[in-house]
Amino acid sequence: MPMQAFPRRIAVLGSTGSIGRQTLDVVRAHPQQFQVVALAARNNVALLAEQAREFSPALVASDAEDPAALAQLADLLPQAQRGMDGLLAVATHPDADIVVAATSGLIGLRPTLAAIAAGKTIALANKETLVMAGHLVMAAAREHGVAIMPIDSEHSALWQCLRGEDPAAIRKLIITASGGPFRHASLDEMARVTAAQALRHPTWVMGPKITIDSATLMNKGLEVIEGHWLFDVPYDRIEVVVQPQSIIHSMVEFIDGSIKMQASLPSMHLTIQEALSHPQRLDNSGNDLLRPLDWPTVVRLDFEALDIERFPCFRLALEAGRRGGTAPAVLVGADETAVALFLRGEIGLMEIPARIERALAAHRVIDDPDLDAVLDACHWARDYAAHSLL
Amino acid sequence: MPMQAFPRRIAVLGSTGSIGRQTLDVVRAHPQQFQVVALAARNNVALLAEQAREFSPALVASDAEDPAALAQLADLLPQAQRGMDGLLAVATHPDADIVVAATSGLIGLRPTLAAIAAGKTIALANKETLVMAGHLVMAAAREHGVAIMPIDSEHSALWQCLRGEDPAAIRKLIITASGGPFRHASLDEMARVTAAQALRHPTWVMGPKITIDSATLMNKGLEVIEGHWLFDVPYDRIEVVVQPQSIIHSMVEFIDGSIKMQASLPSMHLTIQEALSHPQRLDNSGNDLLRPLDWPTVVRLDFEALDIERFPCFRLALEAGRRGGTAPAVLVGADETAVALFLRGEIGLMEIPARIERALAAHRVIDDPDLDAVLDACHWARDYAAHSLL
Repeated sequence: MPMQAFPRRIAVLGSTGSIGRQTLDVVRAHPQQFQVVALAARNNVALLAEQAREFSPALVASDAEDPAALAQLADLLPQAQRGMDGLLAVATHPDADIVVAATSGLIGLRPTLAAIAAGKTIALANKETLVMAGHLVMAAAREHGVAIMPIDSEHSALWQCLRGEDPAAIRKLIITASGGPFRHASLDEMARVTAAQALRHPTWVMGPKITIDSATLMNKGLEVIEGHWLFDVPYDRIEVVVQPQSIIHSMVEFIDGSIKMQASLPSMHLTIQEALSHPQRLDNSGNDLLRPLDWPTVVRLDFEALDIERFPCFRLALEAGRRGGTAPAVLVGADETAVALFLRGEIGLMEIPARIERALAAHRVIDDPDLDAVLDACHWARDYAAHSLL
Repeated sequence: MPMQAFPRRIAVLGSTGSIGRQTLDVVRAHPQQFQVVALAARNNVALLAEQAREFSPALVASDAEDPAALAQLADLLPQAQRGMDGLLAVATHPDADIVVAATSGLIGLRPTLAAIAAGKTIALANKETLVMAGHLVMAAAREHGVAIMPIDSEHSALWQCLRGEDPAAIRKLIITASGGPFRHASLDEMARVTAAQALRHPTWVMGPKITIDSATLMNKGLEVIEGHWLFDVPYDRIEVVVQPQSIIHSMVEFIDGSIKMQASLPSMHLTIQEALSHPQRLDNSGNDLLRPLDWPTVVRLDFEALDIERFPCFRLALEAGRRGGTAPAVLVGADETAVALFLRGEIGLMEIPARIERALAAHRVIDDPDLDAVLDACHWARDYAAHSLL
């Protein structure tokens, strides 16, 4: 893949979400290196308008569906492109070198594939894209000679550890997990957990969906699937180990037995910057994006085995990943519904894996599915998990 | 520097010492990748003869001085070349691609420079070489386009972390230290330590000189000086942190704040293999050179600040390194004598830094010394430290 010169021109899908806002922080910290050329968001039109004023992108888009947001859009951003066409225009903007795919859920899948087809480097924050359609995305990336740069601290860590290394020398990817807020909770305790408790993540501040996925360790299962696709490593050579302080973001063990790991205080800013600046590193000593680690004050790093019994979502994700085909799409769809129900207080935390397991059991897997088959399976699972009754 | 093909042909200076023997273990484990073409050792003629029988090198040399060893040499290895000429012949053997410089003390300096001049890749285990003559060795390596591969777990770790990275992106080298057997001992306790106590290193099994240097943290100071030369990083950007388990062998902090570290169970086999096989990694799953780390059973890694007050040898090394010129040669010479006196029970452990400090204070530093000036300063300091009386 060609190495892009600086300044690199960036399009952001999902600019008002957590990753989107932090992407713009990175651009702000490195104005010589990055320019924003296109922004897309959904309902937070006020923030999108503010971002448009600050960065003067050539194109703004919103696929807002909320009536209040639509009214605001007409008022604040009359020039914005609308709907999926708007997202696709941002994803394929001719001036963009890099597309940050940071929408949540399924909506990013089509624009990401469009960006790949348009030859853009992809900075990928949206897990669902690779989990559900890894076979399509990686094949398209190979076909168009496009790099997929992970915006996920674990995969960014693996990516960094693999710089200058021969992929054939990988023995194992070792993905670290904080263990989430219920690392030491019993199954009974977890069954009684409230949404407020589950939203208190010990080390990372993130959106609500991913925070719940972190509490159930679904998120870690999705990361294993992502890792499988990004690094082309079979599932039996991807391990997960709990590292509660979230300082070691992942490790690679090589065939000679040497292990490399990447560390920092938890910071999506660093991960985003790494994806945008690769293979160059940009100096952060003059900004406040990342507080450096001070080793003597770190004092200790703990490691624990992951207790799969207490985290059935992790097991289900691995089973779906290994099964392949439409199974991961069903996993993602059922999880999306179950987490939403949990956040609304309608089901308990342990009902999330139960709903997913029922959806996976009821689904007839289609092998090597095209994009429509993937999306159909996901939509089916969303509905199934909403209505399934024991 | 040209990448050498396999099999790589190896000459070993110091083949009967700890690093030399482990180098031959690595060759034994990877017979398709490595061939021994020349071996040199000092007094352990019986072992040298055994190695010669096993590996059939084209050349064997010994610079034995011990009369019994000389008699054995005539008997067991009549074909062996003798003295410094023998070492130089091994170091410059026309068939050798890589010269492992694993003699102890000063003796390796001249053969190493000769090997560099002959265009050999240097796998450098001898610390004194870079500490005393880093300016000469690195200039010669640049002139002859030769790579200096460190055989020292810390520098090997730094080297591995820097693969694929731009040296300009280094913010800090962070060298780890086990802290040695007296990590938590008081100055009073250390003053009363016996040689037997000091020889019990908590995590590494090594020769006596380096084990005492590890107990006083002189070894860590020498490693900082080595790191300065190997990676061309100024002293104020090299830090030391105590990592008592000796699992993390060192780290690099980059300008963006990201940190990479290398880990394994303590193993010189791995470090030697890395130096010999670079940039390729060779599979160790079929041999017993290295027990892999099992993360969940590692449980924890601790980090502590280094207490410079209790380890004056570390401070003296850094002062000598920063001063440059002949100061590091004086440090090395005085330390060699003082450690020998300590091992013979003639002085206490804390008299080691006292003798070194007196030698450094009495020495008039010569800037940018040539090899003779370096060796003269070292020999002077050896004598001075032996005879100095308070």
